Amino acid sequence: MKTLEMALKGLEKISTGLYRKDLLLSWEHTYADIETVLTIAEILKTLHQNNIVTQPFASGLAVSQFKDNSTRTRFSFASAANLLGLAVQDLDEAKSQLVHGETVRETANMLSFLTEVIGIRDDMYLGVGHNYMQEVASALDSGFADGVLNQRPVLVNLQCDLDHPTQALADLAHLKTVFGSLENLRGKKIAMSWAYSPSYGKPLSVPQGIIGLMSWFGMDVVLSHPPGYSLLPEVIDAAQRNTTASGGQFTTTQSMDEAFKNADIVYPKSWAPLGIMQRRAELFCNGDTAALKELEKEGLAQNARYKSWECTEEKMKLTRGGKALYMHCLPADITGVSCKEGEVQASVFERYRNDTYKEAGFKPFVIAALILAGKFQDPAKILDSFVSRRELRVRGNA
Amino acid sequence: MKTLEMALKGLEKISTGLYRKDLLLSWEHTYADIETVLTIAEILKTLHQNNIVTQPFASGLAVSQFKDNSTRTRFSFASAANLLGLAVQDLDEAKSQLVHGETVRETANMLSFLTEVIGIRDDMYLGVGHNYMQEVASALDSGFADGVLNQRPVLVNLQCDLDHPTQALADLAHLKTVFGSLENLRGKKIAMSWAYSPSYGKPLSVPQGIIGLMSWFGMDVVLSHPPGYSLLPEVIDAAQRNTTASGGQFTTTQSMDEAFKNADIVYPKSWAPLGIMQRRAELFCNGDTAALKELEKEGLAQNARYKSWECTEEKMKLTRGGKALYMHCLPADITGVSCKEGEVQASVFERYRNDTYKEAGFKPFVIAALILAGKFQDPAKILDSFVSRRELRVRGNA
Amino acid sequence: MKTLEMALKGLEKISTGLYRKDLLLSWEHTYADIETVLTIAEILKTLHQNNIVTQPFASGLAVSQFKDNSTRTRFSFASAANLLGLAVQDLDEAKSQLVHGETVRETANMLSFLTEVIGIRDDMYLGVGHNYMQEVASALDSGFADGVLNQRPVLVNLQCDLDHPTQALADLAHLKTVFGSLENLRGKKIAMSWAYSPSYGKPLSVPQGIIGLMSWFGMDVVLSHPPGYSLLPEVIDAAQRNTTASGGQFTTTQSMDEAFKNADIVYPKSWAPLGIMQRRAELFCNGDTAALKELEKEGLAQNARYKSWECTEEKMKLTRGGKALYMHCLPADITGVSCKEGEVQASVFERYRNDTYKEAGFKPFVIAALILAGKFQDPAKILDSFVSRRELRVRGNA
Repeated sequence: MKTLEMALKGLEKISTGLYRKDLLLSWEHTYADIETVLTIAEILKTLHQNNIVTQPFASGLAVSQFKDNSTRTRFSFASAANLLGLAVQDLDEAKSQLVHGETVRETANMLSFLTEVIGIRDDMYLGVGHNYMQEVASALDSGFADGVLNQRPVLVNLQCDLDHPTQALADLAHLKTVFGSLENLRGKKIAMSWAYSPSYGKPLSVPQGIIGLMSWFGMDVVLSHPPGYSLLPEVIDAAQRNTTASGGQFTTTQSMDEAFKNADIVYPKSWAPLGIMQRRAELFCNGDTAALKELEKEGLAQNARYKSWECTEEKMKLTRGGKALYMHCLPADITGVSCKEGEVQASVFERYRNDTYKEAGFKPFVIAALILAGKFQDPAKILDSFVSRRELRVRGNA
Repeated sequence: MKTLEMALKGLEKISTGLYRKDLLLSWEHTYADIETVLTIAEILKTLHQNNIVTQPFASGLAVSQFKDNSTRTRFSFASAANLLGLAVQDLDEAKSQLVHGETVRETANMLSFLTEVIGIRDDMYLGVGHNYMQEVASALDSGFADGVLNQRPVLVNLQCDLDHPTQALADLAHLKTVFGSLENLRGKKIAMSWAYSPSYGKPLSVPQGIIGLMSWFGMDVVLSHPPGYSLLPEVIDAAQRNTTASGGQFTTTQSMDEAFKNADIVYPKSWAPLGIMQRRAELFCNGDTAALKELEKEGLAQNARYKSWECTEEKMKLTRGGKALYMHCLPADITGVSCKEGEVQASVFERYRNDTYKEAGFKPFVIAALILAGKFQDPAKILDSFVSRRELRVRGNA
Repeated sequence: MKTLEMALKGLEKISTGLYRKDLLLSWEHTYADIETVLTIAEILKTLHQNNIVTQPFASGLAVSQFKDNSTRTRFSFASAANLLGLAVQDLDEAKSQLVHGETVRETANMLSFLTEVIGIRDDMYLGVGHNYMQEVASALDSGFADGVLNQRPVLVNLQCDLDHPTQALADLAHLKTVFGSLENLRGKKIAMSWAYSPSYGKPLSVPQGIIGLMSWFGMDVVLSHPPGYSLLPEVIDAAQRNTTASGGQFTTTQSMDEAFKNADIVYPKSWAPLGIMQRRAELFCNGDTAALKELEKEGLAQNARYKSWECTEEKMKLTRGGKALYMHCLPADITGVSCKEGEVQASVFERYRNDTYKEAGFKPFVIAALILAGKFQDPAKILDSFVSRRELRVRGNA
C-alpha cells in the first residue's frame, strides 16, 4: 500500500488543462493532460486505501446513459460518483434509439439542472457514438452559456465507437504501476493484437484507445490483425504521429507472432472487421433488421477463419523472456472456460488473472479523476485539502 | 444571479400551512400555500446558484413510482431529493397495473419505514391516478398513527389524471420571474389553448393544472379548445370560483385566435378529447385491449380534424404587441422538427426555446419546496439555517 | 418509543463474533451471534426513532442482486444501506441465469472495488442459491487476500434456496418486542405451519429459516405440513439439535390443529412440495421449459388437495387462550382479499395486520445490523459513538 507521502509527491504533476473540458478522444489531448488524469487517479486510489474522504461534492447528480450493456463500467462510474459525493441517476432510454438535434439538446439540458457529470456509453455503431457525445457536449455548452444551467456538467466518455478512454487510461495506470513510472515505458514494446472470438460486433474502441493512448510514451507500439480488421485511418495516423513525436515507433503487421516477438506487453483482444462495422452502421441507420441479421452471420464466418489468433503459451514464449505482461479489458473469451475457442488459452489467462483484476481496479479512480480535472480549476488544491482534513471514510475503522 | 439577500427577503412570506400535508390538487389549496411553495423554491434555487448546501436530511429515502414514462420529471424528482440529502429508490411495478385496497395499504407501509417522501406519477387513466394517490396518502396516515412508521412521508403528485402541480408550479415560478412578482400577474391575460398533435391520449392534467393554479392571481384566464375537448367540469368550476375571488376572470372559447388576442402569455398544448379519455379508462379497467386499440384510432382521427390549431407566427401576432410569452411543459410537438405537423411552428418555438428550458429548470426546486413545506413545521427556519451555516455544496469552488 | 438509555443497555450484549463473517445460514451461527444482530438492530431502530445519525460510512457502495422479484426486501436493503451512509447500486443481470466459476469470481471482484456490502436474493431453485452465495463469498475472500480489493465486502443473504435469515431475524426481533425479551421466549410454543395458497413454487427458505432460528431459545417448535411438504432433512436435524441444546423441543406433525393447540405463536405460510422443488431445480439446470410448465400444473394440483390448511378463526381458537400471535412474512394470501382461497381468513389477518407490518419494520434494521457486525471489529463502539455525537438525522426537527 502506497503511503500518503508518496502519493502527494504527484501533486506537482497535476496541470489544469482539463478544466471545463471533456476528454472524449485521448489521442487529441496532451501528454500533460494524460499525466494529470493518471496522477489524480493514483492519489484518489491511495486516499481510498488510507480510508480518507474524497468528496468535494455535498450534493449533485452523476447521470449515466448506457446505450449498450455494461456491468463493470457501470459499476466503475457509480463508484467514482459515490467516491466524490455525487448520486447516480440512470437515463434509461431505449438502447438503440437514434436521437438527434432538438431532442438531444433538450434532453441534455433537462437532465442537467443539478448535474455535475454525465457519463455516456454509445459504442455499437461506427459514426454514431462520438457524434452523439459531441452533440451533448455542445448542448451543455450553450445551456450553461444561456443561463439555463447553473453549472456545466463534465462529460465522460464511457466508450464510444472510436475510443474507450477510461479503459485505456486504467490500462495505462496499471502499466505505470507494473513498470514503476511513465518514463520507464520508454522503449518498451506493446503488442495490441487482434484475437479470435466467437462473438460478433465488438467495437474498435478498445484497440483504437490503446494505440491512441500508448503512443504518448516513446513506446514501440505494434498493431497486429488479420486482413480486413484494420482500425480507422485517422486513428492510425494519430498513433503514428504521436509515437514519432514521443520518440517511439508505431508499426502494423498481419502476423500475431511478429507482434508478440520480444514484446514487453501483449493485449490480445477481438474486434469486428472494419467493413462489417461500416455496413452495420449504415443498415442500423436505415433500420434494416433483416440485413443486420445476415451481416452478423457474415461477421462470424469471417472471424472463424482466424481461430489461430489465440494467445497461447506457445505465443507467450515469443515475448521478452517469455514473460510479457498480458492485458485485457475483461471479460476475456477464454478457451475452454467462457467459450470453446477464444482469445486466450486458459493457463495463460489464469497466470495473469489477478493482474487483469488489478488493471480493472483503476477504472473507478480514472473516472473520478476525469471528473475532478474537468470540474475544478485547481485539482491539486482539492486533493491537498482532502489530505489536510483527513476525514475518515469509514469512521469506526480509525 | 439573485443575491442571497434578495432571496432571504422572501422568508417572511413562508407560511406553515402545508406541514404534514400533501399538495395533490393545487386548486384545493390556499394562496398562502402556493406563495409558500414558490418562495421556498426560489430560495433553494438561489442557494444552489450560490453553492450553499441545502440538506436537512442526513439520511432517508425518496421513493419514486412512475406508472407512466417520464424523463424530465424523473430527473427533477431525483435532483430535488439529492438536493435535500435523500437517496432515491424507484418502485418499479408493472406500469399499467391496477392495484387497490389491501395491496396499496401494505405496499405503502412496506416502502416507508425509512422514507421521507414518496413521489408518484399515475396519469394515464381518468378516475384512477388521483384516487390511487388518496389511497396511498390514507395508508401513510394510518401507518404513522398506528406506530408502524416512525415518520409520515410527504406525498408528491408527479402528475395524476387530474393535475400536474409540480409542472404548473414551475410554470408559475417562471411567470413570477419573467413578470417580476406574483402581484404583477394581476390583469394579465393567459391563454391555455389546445393545440394539434399527432399523438394520442395526452392527459388533461397539464391544462387543468394551469387553469386551476393560474386562477389565484387576478389574471384573465382563457381556455380555448375545439368542440369535444372540454376539461372536467369540477376543475372548470374551481377555476371559475378562484379567478372571481382573486379579482380576475375565467372564460372559455372555441377559437384559438380569440384566446390569443392580446394575450400576455400563451400555453398552446395538446390533450385528448374528454369523451375518449372517459371511455379509455373504462376499457382499461375492463382490460379490453382490442377496444383500446380501436379507441386510439378514433382519438387520432378526431385530433386530425383540428390541425389548424397550431401556434404559428401569424397567431403570435395576435398577442399583446405580438410578444406574448410562449410556454410549454416540454417536449413540444414542433412542426417539421419533432413531427410533420404539430403544436407549434418551428420559428416560434426556437425564439422561446431558452425560455421553456428555464421554465423547466424550476421543477426540481418546486419539488424540493413541496418536500420542505410538507416535512417541516417551520420551513423558514430551515432555510435560514442553511444561510447561516453557509456550508459549500461544491467545496473546491469557494 | 424506547428511550436511548434503554437501548444502550444492550451494548454489553454485543459480541464481535461476526466480524468479517457472512451470516448465510442462521442455524450455523451461535446464540451470541444471533443476540448480537438483534441487539444492534434494536439500537439502530431506537436511534432512528430518536432522529440520530447512524452513518459510519461517508461513502461506499451497497450492491444488490435480485435473481427473483422483490419489493419489500429490496426497499429494506436500500433503507439499511442509506441508514449507514452507503449508496445502492443494483446488479441487474438476467433473472434466471445460471452463472458459475470464472464468471462469478470475476464479476464479484469487478463490482467490489469500492463496495462495502453485497446483498443477494437467489431463492428460486433448490441447490442453486446458497451455492452461488458461497462462490461469491469465496471470490471476495481471494480478491481481498490477493490485494485486488481494498476491503472485503460483507455478503448479506437476502433469501436463498435454504434460508431467509433477514426475514427470520426480523420475525425474532418482533417476538422479542412482543414477549419482552429473548429469555421470555423459553417454553413458548411456536407453530410453523404449512398453509394453502393458489400459487406455485414458493421457496422453502422461510419455514426453514423459522425452525432454524427459533430453535435457539428453549421454545417448543412445532412444524406442521401435509404429506409431501417436508423441509430438507439437514435443516430438520439442525433444528432438532439446537432446540434440544437450548432446553426446548422440536416436533413435526401432519395436523395443523395439533400444531395450533395451545400455541403462543402461529406462522401459517405456504411453500412448495419438496419433491416438486427438487425436480424443478433439475429441469431448470437442463433448461427444460416445457417440463417446467407441466411441473407447475402438478404443483398447483398437489396444493389444491390441502385447501383446509387455512388459518381460520376456528383454528385460532385452538391456540393458547385463543390469542396466539399470528405472524407472516408478507404478502399473505388472504382468503377473499388477495385470492379466492388462501393461507388466512380475512378477519384473522385484519386483527393482526398492524402486527405483521411492525414485524416487517424490523427488516431494514436487521440488514443494517448484519452490515455493522460484519464490517466492524467493535460494533458496540460504533453505536456508542453515534450516541455520543448525537448528530441529528433530520436537522430541522430538533
